[in-house]
Amino acid sequence: MDIKKYLQEKKTIIDSALERYFPNPPEEEGEIRLSTSLQKAIRHSLLNGGKRIRPILSIAAFEAIGGKGDTILPFACALEMIHTYSLIHDDLPAMDNDDYRRGKPTCHKMFGEAISILAGDGLLTEAFKLMTSRSSWDTLSQDKGLILDIVNEIAQAAGISGMVGGQVLDIESEGREVNLPILQYIHTHKTGAMILVSIRVGVRLGGASGETLRAFTRYGERIGLAFQIADDILNVEGKAIALGKNTGTDLSRGKATYPSLLGLEESKRRAKELVEMAVESLKPYGPEVDPLREIGRFIIAREN
Amino acid sequence: MDIKKYLQEKKTIIDSALERYFPNPPEEEGEIRLSTSLQKAIRHSLLNGGKRIRPILSIAAFEAIGGKGDTILPFACALEMIHTYSLIHDDLPAMDNDDYRRGKPTCHKMFGEAISILAGDGLLTEAFKLMTSRSSWDTLSQDKGLILDIVNEIAQAAGISGMVGGQVLDIESEGREVNLPILQYIHTHKTGAMILVSIRVGVRLGGASGETLRAFTRYGERIGLAFQIADDILNVEGKAIALGKNTGTDLSRGKATYPSLLGLEESKRRAKELVEMAVESLKPYGPEVDPLREIGRFIIAREN
Repeated sequence: MDIKKYLQEKKTIIDSALERYFPNPPEEEGEIRLSTSLQKAIRHSLLNGGKRIRPILSIAAFEAIGGKGDTILPFACALEMIHTYSLIHDDLPAMDNDDYRRGKPTCHKMFGEAISILAGDGLLTEAFKLMTSRSSWDTLSQDKGLILDIVNEIAQAAGISGMVGGQVLDIESEGREVNLPILQYIHTHKTGAMILVSIRVGVRLGGASGETLRAFTRYGERIGLAFQIADDILNVEGKAIALGKNTGTDLSRGKATYPSLLGLEESKRRAKELVEMAVESLKPYGPEVDPLREIGRFIIAREN
Repeated sequence: MDIKKYLQEKKTIIDSALERYFPNPPEEEGEIRLSTSLQKAIRHSLLNGGKRIRPILSIAAFEAIGGKGDTILPFACALEMIHTYSLIHDDLPAMDNDDYRRGKPTCHKMFGEAISILAGDGLLTEAFKLMTSRSSWDTLSQDKGLILDIVNEIAQAAGISGMVGGQVLDIESEGREVNLPILQYIHTHKTGAMILVSIRVGVRLGGASGETLRAFTRYGERIGLAFQIADDILNVEGKAIALGKNTGTDLSRGKATYPSLLGLEESKRRAKELVEMAVESLKPYGPEVDPLREIGRFIIAREN
């Protein structure tokens, strides 16, 4: 299969859905209404050419187990909104203090810190609003309890025992001695939890559980870690232009990474091995999971 | 009825539930686990003697329409968690830059900006996790669709067309000319939306809708605005020790308030009138709504 074409097609679907949820604010003045700067800040960060890996994984998993139609779309978009909020907050001066993201000035560089904090808060909240809105679940034949479970699992992955907890440990570890188990803990929480839940949401909303959910979960755990190792590698040897952000920042911040602990070659070997193990987890399945197999390989071959 | 005793009793119930959700982190070291600073920062801001007005309103509304048992408690606590996250973020240097809150140093003064941003993000996310966790709804006889609707309404009130949107306008209005309709818009969004939804959640979870929900909604809209006018007044003539935070800050920041637009006396008259109108909304009901009537009166008589 042509994975680049597949990714582009899915990205187009996700981008246009996100555009519908956050339309361009009207320019006319004169009445009391929402501040347009908040909407502009959200659009600046959300609609800026991201790869949409998380929502694509959700859709790919959903379709792999036979899910039909658009019912996955609001959940897939919510995952991207949560991811984007985390980038806006991570880039803040008090956190990673990054000036560029996806080739454009970061949110706080464009709109200031206060609006960026609120844009992140708003995106996170709107993600939960979207998932629980009637248009997202009212036509689904599934038990509404399953929707509640799915929203709960996403909150779990994004919260203090998931992404937020991982980010805290990441910040606190800067400039300190970090061993491989701790680094793996940081990676699996900060990045891995949201990648894993993206796949699990697709599977669960598609109607599968039991051994299928377990197999896809193993796939998700492995590519989640591989994805972050690949990110660490790109921070060392990636090209800033292709990445759209500065490189070498992990080193200058004293951040422990796979390359800093294991060296570049061993890191690449581990990432490759993890992707092979991820693909192996899907062995019982046929061509319907080819997109997931190819996304796994793409994750370590990408340039941004 | 003795409203102070009632408020104290409900506060104790809420405080001990919040304490259960966020227990003291263990002190021992040596294994990979959650950073304790995140948990400490959350506990510092969440378990610090707040009045718990929002969750108490939820419980009072729930019980007023005949709701029984603890089913309201996780939703009431989630409302307080969302309120606390908003305070942590509002206090940040990039926002209101406040050093004191409820008589103690603000979260960022104690734990730094990065941890405070993440503590707020974590609390907001955990609020949605709590509301959607099986322990919050699995034993409820209600349609699960109602739970999804309630979570959705809370996200709506907290998000960009509610609290976050109001906060953006509030920040952008500093030092600018603001007229009464704009100020009322800011107040009803920044503060009013979460107070209103607190009451509506109690009513809906208690099983009422239609005219009952409309009457309680009118009550909620009115006391929501009265509450913020009372806050504006306390910022002018309150005592910093009783408030636990600095006073006069609205004036020094060039923030439009009811006293700055209408003067202290007229502001007090309006707040009182709004509370009378709120109580009037509940006229068809008997002694079961006495707590709500008294909370309305308390809101404008309070010293913090």
